Amino acid sequence: MSKTKKILLDEKDIPKQWYNIQADLPEPLEPPYNTRAGRPATPDDLEAIFPKEIVKQEVSTERFIDIPDEVRDAYKIWRPSPLVRAAGLEKFLDTPAKIYFKNEGVSPSGSHKSNSAIAQAFYNKAAGTKRIATETGAGQWGSALAMACEMFGIECVVYMVKVSFEQKPYRKSLMQVYGAQVFASPSDKTETGRQVLAKDPDNEGSLGIAISEAIEDVLNHKNAKYSLGSVLNHVALHQTIIGLEAKKQLEIAGDYPDIVVACLGGGSNFSGTAFPFVMDKLQGRKPALRAIAAEPSACPKLSKGVFEYDFGDNSGFTPALKMYTLGHTFMPGGIHAGGLRYHGASPLVSALVKHKAIESAVVKQRAVFEAAVTFARTEGILPAPESAHAIRIAMDEALKAKEEGKSKTILFNLSGHGHFDLSAYDNYLSGKMEDYDYPSDKVKEALCQLPKVNSRVES
Amino acid sequence: MSKTKKILLDEKDIPKQWYNIQADLPEPLEPPYNTRAGRPATPDDLEAIFPKEIVKQEVSTERFIDIPDEVRDAYKIWRPSPLVRAAGLEKFLDTPAKIYFKNEGVSPSGSHKSNSAIAQAFYNKAAGTKRIATETGAGQWGSALAMACEMFGIECVVYMVKVSFEQKPYRKSLMQVYGAQVFASPSDKTETGRQVLAKDPDNEGSLGIAISEAIEDVLNHKNAKYSLGSVLNHVALHQTIIGLEAKKQLEIAGDYPDIVVACLGGGSNFSGTAFPFVMDKLQGRKPALRAIAAEPSACPKLSKGVFEYDFGDNSGFTPALKMYTLGHTFMPGGIHAGGLRYHGASPLVSALVKHKAIESAVVKQRAVFEAAVTFARTEGILPAPESAHAIRIAMDEALKAKEEGKSKTILFNLSGHGHFDLSAYDNYLSGKMEDYDYPSDKVKEALCQLPKVNSRVES
Repeated sequence: MSKTKKILLDEKDIPKQWYNIQADLPEPLEPPYNTRAGRPATPDDLEAIFPKEIVKQEVSTERFIDIPDEVRDAYKIWRPSPLVRAAGLEKFLDTPAKIYFKNEGVSPSGSHKSNSAIAQAFYNKAAGTKRIATETGAGQWGSALAMACEMFGIECVVYMVKVSFEQKPYRKSLMQVYGAQVFASPSDKTETGRQVLAKDPDNEGSLGIAISEAIEDVLNHKNAKYSLGSVLNHVALHQTIIGLEAKKQLEIAGDYPDIVVACLGGGSNFSGTAFPFVMDKLQGRKPALRAIAAEPSACPKLSKGVFEYDFGDNSGFTPALKMYTLGHTFMPGGIHAGGLRYHGASPLVSALVKHKAIESAVVKQRAVFEAAVTFARTEGILPAPESAHAIRIAMDEALKAKEEGKSKTILFNLSGHGHFDLSAYDNYLSGKMEDYDYPSDKVKEALCQLPKVNSRVES
Repeated sequence: MSKTKKILLDEKDIPKQWYNIQADLPEPLEPPYNTRAGRPATPDDLEAIFPKEIVKQEVSTERFIDIPDEVRDAYKIWRPSPLVRAAGLEKFLDTPAKIYFKNEGVSPSGSHKSNSAIAQAFYNKAAGTKRIATETGAGQWGSALAMACEMFGIECVVYMVKVSFEQKPYRKSLMQVYGAQVFASPSDKTETGRQVLAKDPDNEGSLGIAISEAIEDVLNHKNAKYSLGSVLNHVALHQTIIGLEAKKQLEIAGDYPDIVVACLGGGSNFSGTAFPFVMDKLQGRKPALRAIAAEPSACPKLSKGVFEYDFGDNSGFTPALKMYTLGHTFMPGGIHAGGLRYHGASPLVSALVKHKAIESAVVKQRAVFEAAVTFARTEGILPAPESAHAIRIAMDEALKAKEEGKSKTILFNLSGHGHFDLSAYDNYLSGKMEDYDYPSDKVKEALCQLPKVNSRVES
């Protein structure tokens, strides 16, 4: 008895630099593409909606980038987050594998999203931004950004997809507690919203419309900037705090993972967890390391998508990014892991999949919730449905290790707690939950809508 | 910049003993009274529904009681909990006071309730209990006990007040994820429930009926025991882990509180936070220490109640306890802090108020939510409405210190997070929240229903 459960760090051990994997890529990323102008996007294009420092990070190839003191101080509200040995789960699985998880659910917004929200709020504050607009679906990003803006004294405006606004009023209330203005999108606050409503007053909204509204809001207000919670390189950069801390903690435990698992929506959680370990692989020190992105069967862009230029949003408003995508017009089935219902994967993650430096795995919804309930019962903590995708893969790998009689070290990221997701658990426990197969026909259709880009020639 | 925010302890610093304030009381507690038998309750009476070790703790006057290794190991899922310097709140209040808070919201069930749930599950397991029945209102206790029972392999049955069962389905789902059976009370599982339903099929339930059902369940099943989440001495004992950790953490910071604040429902949270400090006062080392129990104006038993024998439940089923009470038939108004809507206060807390060793303070609901929102905006963490009662008093004391130009050290307990309570925040932010005055007429009526007890003569 009296075993160590959590590996904790002191506040002074919060990393002082983020890790930028662009320094270690086998070849440079292809740049975003401005389809309207018919040319690669320039830093100037990006500075219309992001502060200069963020744009610098977006394109930087410096390996380590200093974390400002103010950001580290704000991180201290909940960081360093615990690294936990899942001994209860190991015992239940009767596996020789060692399973560790990083618990990002202890953040005030309940998920890893705060790691980038705070950094973005800081750089905006430093650049004189008075107002930040963003969009949110399920609300994790919106609530993380609302809290960060409140801390740095910036006005926060969130366009929330109307169907979520109405079905998930609690996330809306959380953003409002943090002082944000939350509008159901389509709204009457923008030309985009008004046009949609004029055509269809009952329109339930989409992430695409909400992005368009947020960007229009930015262009219509002085000292206003836009903020995004995933996909882009600077977001992945900020999230590496997760993996960098985990590395220090595993070092204390005298361990190093054979397998790193995280779920993948836009890619911020996976990047943040895995990149600091993938660095060791890219630099040749850990050639056998496996980093696995867990995807839902309803939306498996890495496993089933194409590696092409595509828009970041459903309506084709953003620059096009070279990434694995199911097509920007693809609408995945209504799985409960709202954070994973995104058609594309971050360009960085996509490039690493293309280079076979990382891999992906697909899981179905019921198997995910079975893993979630097992985890709650053996480790005490209720996981977010998104995070449970990683738990499922970690469990499967631990069972494989048992079959093979091998001791493996598995690390996964518990990206958020599930206290906001109990209706999904209710759906599962009452036997009503559906599985979703990969919708190949819908994807085929969506892939016909990819934008025309010829970046190789023009850039 | 780069200040310390949280004071963290290692797992090995989790206290090895709980503190039992019965060792330091100015005079012994008056015993529970068995009104049916017309005599003080005996340990035998209690052992019908509690395991022997718990009954021993209930009456023990030993100052320190060992925490079993198995309990300390289970605590490691989230303990030691952080002690946090509320520098953001201090700055907002512009106060010379130092404000610290202990964050119990990081537990898997989201509140301090797990501290006793795990201990009770352990002692029951050791005694061969196969099934534990309990009641729950808002659901904090039920979910903490469900998780603890799952960890120790005991069946858990929760009778949940029907109106909460229907209005708070999420807490029910959480208990079910942890493997508990949850019945809406009145249920058809007990004679009590069936009788109530026969008379009134639409009965919405009450904590009194739910307690009766849980106890009947225990008496009707082999190897079954009952479990309570507050009020009793052994629950207060287990909760002292909060104050004992906080003491170690403040020592690291080189500090000691002038004022300790916690909210008071049945008393478990207040006892756990304050008693380890009140010990120093009772033993003469810290005569000036102030320990303040924060009560809602809708249910201020310490501030406005009488110190008399009264039943623990609304229907007069339990032994009578000598305590501050508003009368067991008193139904407080519908404040959002469901955990504070209890008519009585723990006998230990009551005795200490009677001896003027601790004090109470009354706050109104809107002022509480104003404090809650201020706290969320300055410290990032969303508090449970119960905990926000303590925040309100801590803020008021910090403002008093400012007026007086005195530097004071204030410690309060953040007993739970508010992610389950966003509908209450929504109610506040939309301007619909009501205040509740002290309902003196209803109390006067309830006080006429106190049981007849003459313990002094008979004991």
